[in-house]
Amino acid sequence: MSIIVLGTVALDTVKTPHGVKKHMLGGSAVHFSMSARLFTDVHLVAIVGKDFPRRHINFLEKKGIVLDSLIRDPGKTFRWEGEYEGDLNTAFTKKTELGVLLTFCPRVSGEQMHIKNIFLANVDPDIQTRLLGCMHKPRLVGLDSMNYWIHHKKKSLLELLKKVDIYVANDREARDLTAEHNLMKAAKALRRFGPEMVLIKKGEHGVLVYSDKFVFCLPAYPTDRVIDPTGAGDTFAGAFMGHLSRQKKINVAAVKRAAAYGTIAASFNVEAFGLDNTSRFSLKDIDKRLARFRQICLF
Amino acid sequence: MSIIVLGTVALDTVKTPHGVKKHMLGGSAVHFSMSARLFTDVHLVAIVGKDFPRRHINFLEKKGIVLDSLIRDPGKTFRWEGEYEGDLNTAFTKKTELGVLLTFCPRVSGEQMHIKNIFLANVDPDIQTRLLGCMHKPRLVGLDSMNYWIHHKKKSLLELLKKVDIYVANDREARDLTAEHNLMKAAKALRRFGPEMVLIKKGEHGVLVYSDKFVFCLPAYPTDRVIDPTGAGDTFAGAFMGHLSRQKKINVAAVKRAAAYGTIAASFNVEAFGLDNTSRFSLKDIDKRLARFRQICLF
Repeated sequence: MSIIVLGTVALDTVKTPHGVKKHMLGGSAVHFSMSARLFTDVHLVAIVGKDFPRRHINFLEKKGIVLDSLIRDPGKTFRWEGEYEGDLNTAFTKKTELGVLLTFCPRVSGEQMHIKNIFLANVDPDIQTRLLGCMHKPRLVGLDSMNYWIHHKKKSLLELLKKVDIYVANDREARDLTAEHNLMKAAKALRRFGPEMVLIKKGEHGVLVYSDKFVFCLPAYPTDRVIDPTGAGDTFAGAFMGHLSRQKKINVAAVKRAAAYGTIAASFNVEAFGLDNTSRFSLKDIDKRLARFRQICLF
Repeated sequence: MSIIVLGTVALDTVKTPHGVKKHMLGGSAVHFSMSARLFTDVHLVAIVGKDFPRRHINFLEKKGIVLDSLIRDPGKTFRWEGEYEGDLNTAFTKKTELGVLLTFCPRVSGEQMHIKNIFLANVDPDIQTRLLGCMHKPRLVGLDSMNYWIHHKKKSLLELLKKVDIYVANDREARDLTAEHNLMKAAKALRRFGPEMVLIKKGEHGVLVYSDKFVFCLPAYPTDRVIDPTGAGDTFAGAFMGHLSRQKKINVAAVKRAAAYGTIAASFNVEAFGLDNTSRFSLKDIDKRLARFRQICLF
């Protein structure tokens, strides 16, 4: 089954100890799509400005992403500039130009309204709510957010949390939203906000999946080539949701495998700048590394 | 086969968000012994002062720890006072009274010199080196240290690293000793210092086992009852080394299982103050939780 993703399409400028890359194609919806496309059809809902290079559109189309609901607006494309230092775990935002995001009102076609799997990638929770309101009887709704919205639109975010099945947060967001330091306590508190399943992404430390029925812990794939972690969380979510979207039954085994796919997809993402790896990798590459990952985790 | 552990016996005063406990029996060799005793005979090499309560001696004897090389000196027992805040991942040392540790010269009996499994728990690396020099043809030597020695006795520590099989460090120590942020890079750098196997303990984030032949990653056992993490690393090492000590062949499967035992033993340790849990638990308790841990990790 197809999946529809709402989020940002951005031009990213990133500085890491490995170099600087300017105006790369990025954004939450793009990084999500790059891994989700390996599993299912991906429909992207986002906005770009008139400065958005035609070659990026061609690139996304070539990757099979459905762009029917990618709005092109007269304003400027959303731009983010960030820097990573030391262990590359935390991004320091140097500049954000919202541009067309300020007036973004998502729209989907009549057909797209019936897509059953939805991912609300990081964007203003009011926009996420609006998109969700357009959709007819979704089967699976995943949500990501970020600290900015936790602090500036907490009420909207809490309302939205009641309506989603899966909430994907990083450890800092989980702690900020719940005021719990212990991640198991934080996961339980997030569960009480509504979503049946909570995923806490811990960057280089892996992921914790929490639901009333089971708990699942997975380390990150160990790599010593961390070049640019931008979009790793979205890449994780793309593979995770992508795998679940094509499962008839979403049971424990499916969720565990989805989290493992997410982990491996994210490991490819961090090993290169921007989309350099994820625009090229295949499900075969992921399966190969997953087999190695099993050896690394099994006991 | 028996194991001999060199380290500290301490009187710990610990403050956590869950309360304050004064002058508890603690120290690296004691925490190590509490979990290692479940797997094999444990011989303890350490020093205490004349203020050391007789009841603690009785307690250790009752737990089956061999105290033939526990020196009783006229001075004061080593005391440590620490506090944990927030996520309880980092201890802030408020006070250290070295006491008898200042003049500690370890000695072992003629019989003990032939014990084949050795763990050099955290204590001055010169003292660790001296003890190791007394031992006849060891089969397996494990080493732990701490940031203080990395910064104050780096040369001694680096010399010692050439002589051990397994080095157990926490993430901060690994980074400080190697100047590498990435833990895989740090593990590889530590391997080059000498030890065939490197374990990097990441507290609530689990453990990374690195050797030339294999890599193994394990998350921590997820618990929301973190009461007092003091001694968790030593408890981990005790179960890890304890399991390996009784294996005829130390292969990949044995190391993985040992790391899993260490993880579970450490989870019991953090769920109570001092030795409250680890003085009472059994191998049956550990095996039971290990079975649950498998479900949590397997995919």
